[in-house]
Amino acid sequence: MPAYTAPLRDIRFVMDDLLDFSSHYNQLNSTTEVDRETQLAIIEEAAKFSENVLSPLNAVGDQIGCTWTADGVTTPPGFKQAYQQYCDGGWPSLAMPEAFGGQGLPESMNIVVSELVCSGCVAWSGYPGLREGAIKTLLSYGSESLQNTYLPNLVSGKWTGTMCLTESHCGTDLGQLKTKAMPITATQYTLTGTKIFISCGEHDMAENIVHIVLARLPNSPEGSAGISLFVVPKFLVNGDGSLGQRNSLNCGSIEHKMGIHGFVTCVMNFDGATGYLVGQPNKGLEAMFTFMNSARLTTALQGLVHSEVAYQGAVPYAQERLAMRSLSGAKNPKGPADPIIVHPDVRRMLLTIKSFAEGFRAFAYYVAQQLDLSEHAKSDESKTHAKKLLALLTPICKGFMTELGCEAAHHGVQVFGGHGYIREWGMEQNQRDSRISTLYEGTTGIQALDLIGRKILGSRGELLTNFSTIIVEFCESQHSNPSMQEFTQPLSKATTEWLTLAKIIGQSAAADPEEIGAASVDFLMFSGYTILAYFWARMAQVSLEKLEQGADDKDLYLAKVNTAKFYFQRILPRTATLKLTIQSGAANLMQINADQF
Amino acid sequence: MPAYTAPLRDIRFVMDDLLDFSSHYNQLNSTTEVDRETQLAIIEEAAKFSENVLSPLNAVGDQIGCTWTADGVTTPPGFKQAYQQYCDGGWPSLAMPEAFGGQGLPESMNIVVSELVCSGCVAWSGYPGLREGAIKTLLSYGSESLQNTYLPNLVSGKWTGTMCLTESHCGTDLGQLKTKAMPITATQYTLTGTKIFISCGEHDMAENIVHIVLARLPNSPEGSAGISLFVVPKFLVNGDGSLGQRNSLNCGSIEHKMGIHGFVTCVMNFDGATGYLVGQPNKGLEAMFTFMNSARLTTALQGLVHSEVAYQGAVPYAQERLAMRSLSGAKNPKGPADPIIVHPDVRRMLLTIKSFAEGFRAFAYYVAQQLDLSEHAKSDESKTHAKKLLALLTPICKGFMTELGCEAAHHGVQVFGGHGYIREWGMEQNQRDSRISTLYEGTTGIQALDLIGRKILGSRGELLTNFSTIIVEFCESQHSNPSMQEFTQPLSKATTEWLTLAKIIGQSAAADPEEIGAASVDFLMFSGYTILAYFWARMAQVSLEKLEQGADDKDLYLAKVNTAKFYFQRILPRTATLKLTIQSGAANLMQINADQF
Repeated sequence: MPAYTAPLRDIRFVMDDLLDFSSHYNQLNSTTEVDRETQLAIIEEAAKFSENVLSPLNAVGDQIGCTWTADGVTTPPGFKQAYQQYCDGGWPSLAMPEAFGGQGLPESMNIVVSELVCSGCVAWSGYPGLREGAIKTLLSYGSESLQNTYLPNLVSGKWTGTMCLTESHCGTDLGQLKTKAMPITATQYTLTGTKIFISCGEHDMAENIVHIVLARLPNSPEGSAGISLFVVPKFLVNGDGSLGQRNSLNCGSIEHKMGIHGFVTCVMNFDGATGYLVGQPNKGLEAMFTFMNSARLTTALQGLVHSEVAYQGAVPYAQERLAMRSLSGAKNPKGPADPIIVHPDVRRMLLTIKSFAEGFRAFAYYVAQQLDLSEHAKSDESKTHAKKLLALLTPICKGFMTELGCEAAHHGVQVFGGHGYIREWGMEQNQRDSRISTLYEGTTGIQALDLIGRKILGSRGELLTNFSTIIVEFCESQHSNPSMQEFTQPLSKATTEWLTLAKIIGQSAAADPEEIGAASVDFLMFSGYTILAYFWARMAQVSLEKLEQGADDKDLYLAKVNTAKFYFQRILPRTATLKLTIQSGAANLMQINADQF
Repeated sequence: MPAYTAPLRDIRFVMDDLLDFSSHYNQLNSTTEVDRETQLAIIEEAAKFSENVLSPLNAVGDQIGCTWTADGVTTPPGFKQAYQQYCDGGWPSLAMPEAFGGQGLPESMNIVVSELVCSGCVAWSGYPGLREGAIKTLLSYGSESLQNTYLPNLVSGKWTGTMCLTESHCGTDLGQLKTKAMPITATQYTLTGTKIFISCGEHDMAENIVHIVLARLPNSPEGSAGISLFVVPKFLVNGDGSLGQRNSLNCGSIEHKMGIHGFVTCVMNFDGATGYLVGQPNKGLEAMFTFMNSARLTTALQGLVHSEVAYQGAVPYAQERLAMRSLSGAKNPKGPADPIIVHPDVRRMLLTIKSFAEGFRAFAYYVAQQLDLSEHAKSDESKTHAKKLLALLTPICKGFMTELGCEAAHHGVQVFGGHGYIREWGMEQNQRDSRISTLYEGTTGIQALDLIGRKILGSRGELLTNFSTIIVEFCESQHSNPSMQEFTQPLSKATTEWLTLAKIIGQSAAADPEEIGAASVDFLMFSGYTILAYFWARMAQVSLEKLEQGADDKDLYLAKVNTAKFYFQRILPRTATLKLTIQSGAANLMQINADQF
């Protein structure tokens, strides 16, 4: 695995030049000031931690993985120590509320730090990451007593958390779940059932693990309307906050996975375990959806991370590996052959990865800004606007970026030729690690149904128009800028087609609801390519401006413009196919009988 | 890993209904008669061997893999016994010449058997597979003495073989290789150097291993014009054919790979090892290219195999797994949810895989028929025609089928949701195993340069016209068949575009040779989608005819027609994007400086 180098210059390009984080933070109603100096200090420290502490754990985490015994799970060598350093550095509490010991920084700063941490070692990054879901659940729905008992230690990272949703027969369709909760007192219950795919369900990195568990109360309604939420700690907590007895739950086994071997995935058995109701009975599933946006954005980041890792591996290899001569004449005449970066098809792969990594960063940070605004904007109107953008963009960000992150990881292997298939280069690990991202936190198919069904048709197009208006306004603002026409013209065309396709799907769905599912994933991908075109057009515009101003870093801005050209000429044309397949309708999927497969 | 069931009905559809193997064999000048009864007997026996002996080894081969010690390599439990059974059954000699103990069957029968064997356990199938390269080298270029010494035991499978080409600094660009051969006698040499990525270089399955090694003679020209070919056995062979002393070569280590763990990949050290010149000095690389077509076709088969395995895993899962309700109303109202095969997007993935697997089978068997004809057609004219088709189709078959085989394996995982990421279901192994196929035996980039540079531009379009004429004639033959128009019209359009794009690339390449590389992979993929459309149109035509005739197996033929419709409406439109990216030219790849990456 190549050592990770935090792409701080590219990150600053997005934070400073493109999305102007400093002005953005001035729009927030927040007590914590985050000036540019603070931003820089945070990302530089996070970069060091990721490069020096996490990146060295990446290969060992994969090769040794986690070990299960009846007594618990041992994480790979170094994981526990790195987690201690992470806690000592105060990282777990960065964007947590000050009331429970947090530092109260905006979510968007946390996303930048998450990118850095996740890029260093994606398997390790899950342990602090999962904790955030438990914290948000308790913050939104926990009683004061539960909050005071659990939040301080979760916020500091002393304890970690999990989300126990999936059972062996249901993951997406949680309405089928069977775990039972029996009332003991007004707030106390005993939980019995088996959960699978519980990330970080058991490990040796923290002294307590706080499980958030979905279960059914006696006589609750069938299906998703009968699910309640409980907090179930590994160790019960005494009145004075000290750890009490071991709860009746254990990790029955761990999964053998394709990748992220250092990130433990547990079967959790609850055997009359003591738990406490969180929020209202039977409202558990709705509660889960409250903070789905931030969880999905964090998962979407993996698309960026696996692209970045592929890029950092493949570029130096392509610059050093000598094979064949350039078709337009030797570029390294004194050497035995030319470096493979001279070959157009190698560049095609590298630029594909580059256009994904850098485009995804712009997209993800923009969505993170909407997360900030949705909670901390100064006006309710701005909050609502941001919430609407989030509703539209989150499923696209998650589905699109993770699908293409897998593609980028595939190209990363391909650039290495046969060496890409060998463990020591790390490219195959990156591909294996990437593969989970389109599956967990809602598969691509689920994101796509959420997008077209709930968000677009459900809002009668309002959510779509909210964002497409932003694109249209941008294009109009560049009307008299000749060097931007090669970007704004195809972007306008794609945006118009995007709106038209949404209408067509709506119309055909009125006659046949299967049309929604038939168009869903292709429509999500069409949306993603259009949005990424918007961000690449904006990056080109900013870079052209900087070049005109004679800014330093000429190479960086030239590279951005050239990558934008590549994106518009080589990637955006994928919408041509998607337009055709979306319009092809449901019949070509539905006319074959299930038993003719 | 799901147990493999040989898709005999689909195989027979291609052999009988589509490509009429029996008539094809009557066109061959061969002493071995292969009537339909013989064909059936062979495929049924091969199916049993694959299902009963190989398929059970697939998971264990992955999980235990090969073990290296200084004394040699141990293959996974059961591999050696299966190989013995394979030899006892006479399989190694199926398509080998009778002069050396072979059964002389046509190459196309061997390809069908290879599909079955490879589908059962791709890692195992490499051991007998690699041997074929060594046999063909000796058959074409070996002296009578070398042939008599090595071929009988290679043909029977008693000994296996390898191809030792790659060195650590060169794989694609073999002109850089450094292994040295010093002459001892007129035919005997000592070889010194290190080869990497040597498949089956050392193992415990056969009593001798015959290495075909590329090396340089003293004072040979630099680059690819100075490479010679040697046979270097693990154990020297005495005059009476018995095994003599151990040669001075050893396996220094084995690679840790992403997949095909049961298929050993060795670093081979030749330390003054005794070898014998094969063919003319300095003509070794040309000799290697002689039988590249059959080796590449065998690798192309992996695209079919990984699609078939993905399909066999995903369909039963989709039929059994219950999640959510169909958008058009419950299909399994008595159950807690509907099987996921009711959901359009799941069907989209399954049909994508199905259209690949069945389309690839038609494509690969057709190419195998051309292999037969190129060697055994009754007229020289037919031989030449087949050779020209092979020259065009082989790089497309290899590059296109393996790229899409990886895509199919990805979808196979996706259908399973989170379960796809877990080892026990076998889908993630299928994806890991598939990943090598676009890398070895020439990467996709190399196939693409061979196609557009050497084959299409090099023949001034003749090779392309040879095949496009066959498509055009087929479309014309269906001119008065109304139910075929939905297939033949888009097929005609794609074929016309294919020819036009080849011309455009030729023209732009005259001004800038980088245009060749810039268009190469997209052009290869365009070619593949067009050719697969041809085979799906033919499969639709045959099936419609069978349905009209009231044939049995109505479901099979209906499924073929519906899959053809899916292919034309959902997969062939990918050419719309490729047309745009091919035409976008080289500038978007070349204008960025190597150090701006």
